[in-house]
Amino acid sequence: MVRKIKDIRPIELKDYKLYVINQLKLPLEEQWLELSTYGDVAKAIKDMIIRGAPLIGIVGAYGFAIGIKQLIDEGKPLDEAEKVLETLKNTRPTAVNLFWALDRMWKKFEKWKNEKSPDELIKALFKEANRIDLEDYHANKSIGGYGQVLIPEKANVLTHCNTGALATSGWGTALGVIRSAYEDGKDITVYVDETRPYLQGARLTAWELVQEGIPHYLITDNSAGFLISKGLIDVIIVGADRITANGDVANKIGTFTLSVLAKEFNIPFYVAAPTTTFDLNTESGKDIPIEVRNEKEIKECGSCKIAPEETKALNYSFDITPAENISGIITEKGIINEINKESIMKFLKYRGI
Amino acid sequence: MVRKIKDIRPIELKDYKLYVINQLKLPLEEQWLELSTYGDVAKAIKDMIIRGAPLIGIVGAYGFAIGIKQLIDEGKPLDEAEKVLETLKNTRPTAVNLFWALDRMWKKFEKWKNEKSPDELIKALFKEANRIDLEDYHANKSIGGYGQVLIPEKANVLTHCNTGALATSGWGTALGVIRSAYEDGKDITVYVDETRPYLQGARLTAWELVQEGIPHYLITDNSAGFLISKGLIDVIIVGADRITANGDVANKIGTFTLSVLAKEFNIPFYVAAPTTTFDLNTESGKDIPIEVRNEKEIKECGSCKIAPEETKALNYSFDITPAENISGIITEKGIINEINKESIMKFLKYRGI
Repeated sequence: MVRKIKDIRPIELKDYKLYVINQLKLPLEEQWLELSTYGDVAKAIKDMIIRGAPLIGIVGAYGFAIGIKQLIDEGKPLDEAEKVLETLKNTRPTAVNLFWALDRMWKKFEKWKNEKSPDELIKALFKEANRIDLEDYHANKSIGGYGQVLIPEKANVLTHCNTGALATSGWGTALGVIRSAYEDGKDITVYVDETRPYLQGARLTAWELVQEGIPHYLITDNSAGFLISKGLIDVIIVGADRITANGDVANKIGTFTLSVLAKEFNIPFYVAAPTTTFDLNTESGKDIPIEVRNEKEIKECGSCKIAPEETKALNYSFDITPAENISGIITEKGIINEINKESIMKFLKYRGI
Repeated sequence: MVRKIKDIRPIELKDYKLYVINQLKLPLEEQWLELSTYGDVAKAIKDMIIRGAPLIGIVGAYGFAIGIKQLIDEGKPLDEAEKVLETLKNTRPTAVNLFWALDRMWKKFEKWKNEKSPDELIKALFKEANRIDLEDYHANKSIGGYGQVLIPEKANVLTHCNTGALATSGWGTALGVIRSAYEDGKDITVYVDETRPYLQGARLTAWELVQEGIPHYLITDNSAGFLISKGLIDVIIVGADRITANGDVANKIGTFTLSVLAKEFNIPFYVAAPTTTFDLNTESGKDIPIEVRNEKEIKECGSCKIAPEETKALNYSFDITPAENISGIITEKGIINEINKESIMKFLKYRGI
């Protein structure tokens, strides 16, 4: 049985303006915001109005196009493009897709700025951002296709954070694999880590699964170990913000602990991410800057204060999962089964990346 | 240097009525509630106005005395004592201290009901409950004394849930050990797991540590693994709701995962609990009923809804840590270093328990 699943798109471009679902308001309200300047875009990324490594890259690319249009519209010199680039780059430090997308936009900009008229330049940059967007969508569908083969016909799948339509151009990486498996007719129950402090699991992944009617249970992050020990979880699948040359994975805080639990109980632990997530210039996880966010995200939940004023909270946003804890990395080009530098290089080279 | 630490008491008896800090209101407000009937007491336990395995036992004991006084005051037959007992027993299923304290009260009641006048019976039962209360306090101080030896002179200590003054008669088990080490002049920083969903760490442990000026950082439960992997944690110490004959420990959800992480990184993982926590009639953790609480505790945080209405949440309140993951059990009679049935039996027997 093949099921038909509702498509969710987290962003929309119209008249050179970007419209995005305000992910801070989900699941209670589906509010769309208009981002008409690159400053709006940078703020939306920084404040996590939009988030998810691939989506940050896509939105960053559109943000760059919007920024160049702004310079041209306001009659400013194109030299200021560097400021646009830096502003967008400085929003989030961990996800590599942002830097990848901005580098691609920058190179095109450098090439085109003297070749094209201002109008043509604007059009070409928006087209390039749109290409990044569409490529991500197709990469996700391909990740889903490769990855769903790894999911048993009847499976309890644990996932962390949100790696679905809301984190990408519209299908998802890890959640995209789950979606593809469900679409293919498999009997899937998803166990959703709530993912403190930002609650991407409770607010976003659960919301997506409700939209699509995929059976799921929400759990606290600290429940995963007990469920796994009881044999209730068949497979764990997560996304990635950055994968280094040796196969270490930076991802949402809590991912590493899941990998240790998977190893302890001998269940597969997969990472699903487009090849743009690889950062081959970074040797291993030790070299990745880990974002430490404001302690308020822990000490307050919505409008509720949940800790004493005087207490300091330590808010690491990401952690590093070492290559040896990973059963496989699912990309749009296929699955990497042996996670080490040599096999990653071979895999990417063979596929022309 | 020996430090002087502020004493916190979570309950007070006055004129045969029990006054308790409403732990649901902490840390924002220190509200005291009057519990004047055993129904009030049962509700306070069930609704987690008071919680913590030892404190549940103490409050249960007072609740039984209050219930018998009620029967006598209202001219009801003492046969109804069984209803009082059952009502109090049926509040929480996992903590063994409650059953232990109520059994002790029941045996005294059975012995005294025909020996003493109604007035004497009431007085004697309240005195017995008070004895349980004081014994717990002294047990805690003793746990602190034995346990603090295990804490290095300079240490980052990770703890889970609340096992302090608010969970006991007033000093604490695991947090009591930390308190004793700090009082002894050791250079301690406490890493406090926020402990979803009820946030006992963020709300209660952090509040206690603020009162006492003990340095601490609040972290999300899913951060612990990353901090441990970075070498930032020297020792983990937690409490227990029940310890079975073979040394398996039922404790707040999330405890088990910490024990796996401690094993993976070879750091000590201690359990601190009074000997009343042992349930020798239960062979192993598999035989412990695990409380599954209302999904609202996960789906709502204070007045904020944090998940879609349609999403189901699975709220296991406790998990089981197998004996082999535990480095030592710290009791008021000393430390059990080898955690298996034989050594536990020998330890308890040798100390006349």
